[in-house]
Amino acid sequence: MSFSSNTVTVLAPATVANVVCGFDVLGFALAEPHDEMHLRLTDEPGVHILNDDDFGLPTVPARNVAGAALLAMLRAAPEVTGVEVRIRKHIRPGSGIGSSAASAAGAVVGLNALLGGRFSRPELVEFAMYGEEVASGVRHADNIAPAIYGGVTLIRATTPTPDIVPLDAPPLFVTVVHPQIEVKTSDARRILKQQVPLQDAIRQWGNVGALVAGLLQHDYALIGRALEDVIIEPVRSILIPGFQQVKDGSHAAGALGGGISGSGPSLFMLSQHEATAQAVADVMRDTYDRLGLAYYVYQTTINKTGCQVLTN
Amino acid sequence: MSFSSNTVTVLAPATVANVVCGFDVLGFALAEPHDEMHLRLTDEPGVHILNDDDFGLPTVPARNVAGAALLAMLRAAPEVTGVEVRIRKHIRPGSGIGSSAASAAGAVVGLNALLGGRFSRPELVEFAMYGEEVASGVRHADNIAPAIYGGVTLIRATTPTPDIVPLDAPPLFVTVVHPQIEVKTSDARRILKQQVPLQDAIRQWGNVGALVAGLLQHDYALIGRALEDVIIEPVRSILIPGFQQVKDGSHAAGALGGGISGSGPSLFMLSQHEATAQAVADVMRDTYDRLGLAYYVYQTTINKTGCQVLTN
Repeated sequence: MSFSSNTVTVLAPATVANVVCGFDVLGFALAEPHDEMHLRLTDEPGVHILNDDDFGLPTVPARNVAGAALLAMLRAAPEVTGVEVRIRKHIRPGSGIGSSAASAAGAVVGLNALLGGRFSRPELVEFAMYGEEVASGVRHADNIAPAIYGGVTLIRATTPTPDIVPLDAPPLFVTVVHPQIEVKTSDARRILKQQVPLQDAIRQWGNVGALVAGLLQHDYALIGRALEDVIIEPVRSILIPGFQQVKDGSHAAGALGGGISGSGPSLFMLSQHEATAQAVADVMRDTYDRLGLAYYVYQTTINKTGCQVLTN
Repeated sequence: MSFSSNTVTVLAPATVANVVCGFDVLGFALAEPHDEMHLRLTDEPGVHILNDDDFGLPTVPARNVAGAALLAMLRAAPEVTGVEVRIRKHIRPGSGIGSSAASAAGAVVGLNALLGGRFSRPELVEFAMYGEEVASGVRHADNIAPAIYGGVTLIRATTPTPDIVPLDAPPLFVTVVHPQIEVKTSDARRILKQQVPLQDAIRQWGNVGALVAGLLQHDYALIGRALEDVIIEPVRSILIPGFQQVKDGSHAAGALGGGISGSGPSLFMLSQHEATAQAVADVMRDTYDRLGLAYYVYQTTINKTGCQVLTN
């Protein structure tokens, strides 16, 4: 075995999945917030989780998202005896901006760095998806992929193996509000209809195609028009107080568009200009101040690199 | 009124709609075959259709696709007294490669040239959609848009107005086979299920996004992987004898992929190299020779300009 280092620090970014029309296929990484993770190879067998925060997340590896992802990875790297992970979470669990994906992605990127980078990014996505399964019961990759690749990613398909397409997007300012209400991913998935009208599906894939084209052609107006969701948003937005006020106010302030981040409750808005993103942040604060709900606002940009490895 | 010329000739291309995963939203224009149309402003009021072929198409303007499109256009240009159209069709009606769209698109592009180009391309698409309504009962634009714009087009949405996104595709060789069987567009639409499983819809919009990305990034392998249709093809391919043989044989010959053109019966295959496109043509001929069905094969490329206007 030749390991490049014995310990490593990883900054694992928050992510926005779905991106309005791209349910289960689109996502992007945020410059802020991010988790900080420290990984260390150990002589003690297995995976060891240490949480450096008060979120009360499980530390039993099979029930911890980082742990489950690392256990999957260790099955493919049987020469590794053990790995210890210390997690300092800044991405609040249940916020809808990829808290579990950051832990899972950061863990596998970190261990891969300790192993000299032997696994490919698609392989890392597959390992990390085991972490998402622990978090939500579904091995989805729409937060995992941007957390690992950075930027905006499209998941063409997840079977037989994840087929991930990085999309070279233009500069975008992102404003995120996390209202302090609970929306469980499993509940948010359960309320979705399992059959959709063909006409709505056509509208949706027209928008997905157009959003991809708008991103790749750096056509901001097209990005704005394509940020339309006729299938998921009408159902899920009911779970999020202030949704329509934030959306309408953000559009009025000049935002390109936006909607629910992942399965919520966070909402995100994309803007071409920083001043617009600031005005959107004000709209978000005003909305939740009036509703008397506590909230966090993040005004940030797209993280282009994904999980960042700092060798110690 | 200042008209740039009194008569005009238009070459109106055949088109492939749907493009496997992009049902109702994607299409591209073919370099061959194309219709030839001659338009003339007349003092005699209204629209006059002259068919220069034996296809027995209606000449009553409201029942003729070119006529219906021109009638819609004349409502927006009330100063025009009349227009005469002589149509020499080379695109066989019922072939599934946009025969009706070529007539409708060619007619409105021709009249627009006679009017000095006053209408925009999105407006022309709207007029031409009235022709498609005559042909199939549905005002769809997935053949019309590429016939007018050329190249590969994405229709983000058709309401409130057509939102058409031209996609700059890499060079592609196209092989088309038109087996001599009848598949009516109206029948092909009727057999589709009006509700689709959400999981299938997600797979489809992942593929649509990936196909757009593959085209814009000139990534041939990605184009190939994205040419997958889990919703329409499983239903419609049953109507087309030889479908699976052509598809499997073409893949074996090295084609990127392909499927049903529009609602069929024509099948198309895309190839990166001309030699592959020739091998695909052989697969198509062999398949229908064995089945004892007459057929036409077109080996061509993508038309980048759409309807071409030749002033007389």
